[in-house]
Amino acid sequence: MSTDIKSYIRTIPDFPKEGIMFRDVTTLFSDPRGFRMAVDQIVQPFAGQRIDQVVGLEARGFILGGAVAHQLSAGFVPVRKKGKLPGKRLSEDYTLEYGQETVEIHEDAFQPGEKVLLVDDLLATGGTAEAGIRLIERLGGDIVGCAFVIDLPDIGGRARLEQLGMDVHCLCEFSGH
Amino acid sequence: MSTDIKSYIRTIPDFPKEGIMFRDVTTLFSDPRGFRMAVDQIVQPFAGQRIDQVVGLEARGFILGGAVAHQLSAGFVPVRKKGKLPGKRLSEDYTLEYGQETVEIHEDAFQPGEKVLLVDDLLATGGTAEAGIRLIERLGGDIVGCAFVIDLPDIGGRARLEQLGMDVHCLCEFSGH
Repeated sequence: MSTDIKSYIRTIPDFPKEGIMFRDVTTLFSDPRGFRMAVDQIVQPFAGQRIDQVVGLEARGFILGGAVAHQLSAGFVPVRKKGKLPGKRLSEDYTLEYGQETVEIHEDAFQPGEKVLLVDDLLATGGTAEAGIRLIERLGGDIVGCAFVIDLPDIGGRARLEQLGMDVHCLCEFSGH
Repeated sequence: MSTDIKSYIRTIPDFPKEGIMFRDVTTLFSDPRGFRMAVDQIVQPFAGQRIDQVVGLEARGFILGGAVAHQLSAGFVPVRKKGKLPGKRLSEDYTLEYGQETVEIHEDAFQPGEKVLLVDDLLATGGTAEAGIRLIERLGGDIVGCAFVIDLPDIGGRARLEQLGMDVHCLCEFSGH
């Protein structure tokens, strides 16, 4: 946990709709010191472990994931919304407050047995992350951990991922929804 | 120019529609050596120049841009599709083959006078990149260059950006559309 990281994150009320306090990481990422600190702290719990691939969730997870993969000298694999990946792919549906979403991964994104770190900016319900985990596991990936900049513990995503056996690391928490 | 980089890029015919040869960088990004080589070659022409911010275009430009910002110890600023950025923002429209698209940037994304490198995976018509350039210039950013993994020279995006006075660097070319 770091209060430093938290101080770089901006809160925007009523986005994307009334009543939501949106935690905006763009102010963290646009600060050279903040961005580097976030990447350093994301990789720190995994120091000395082999990581072959960083999987990032579309779209903010691509920014962080690209930097984390570079820091680890790993590859980067995107989990994308339906219809965006050009090659043969696996799909997973997950439930949102209203309706369903689908995320996809290339079926040849990595080799079975590769060590994978899942990253995203924010852990809320954990729905997207769980769909990403299922995709990685269907490809035979060995997930070494799931790392997020922000945890919203009141929404329960962390507990949900830990129940799946995941090693979850978050750099800071915000209470509320 | 590098033929090495090109060998990591996969071509998928008829995506997203019949007749399009889609140049797929996911196979470059998921290869640790390929990904690092791409980032190294993107930053190489700007060695010794000050770069404060890397601006990446949604969504594949986020992966590359995050890694490039990390390598340069710069900040990262996203240019996103309409409605995705939570703060106050500027918008630019651009024309597609059919219809219009809009991209946005936070109006406080960086300070006037900051040195900016624009990155994306692919330069085709240059429409999105030109909209990104206009957004950066409206914020008073000083664009040191525009860097892409792939150039499709037959489509003319490079010439379009050079006519705007941009210093354009691409790691490889594919002929055709």
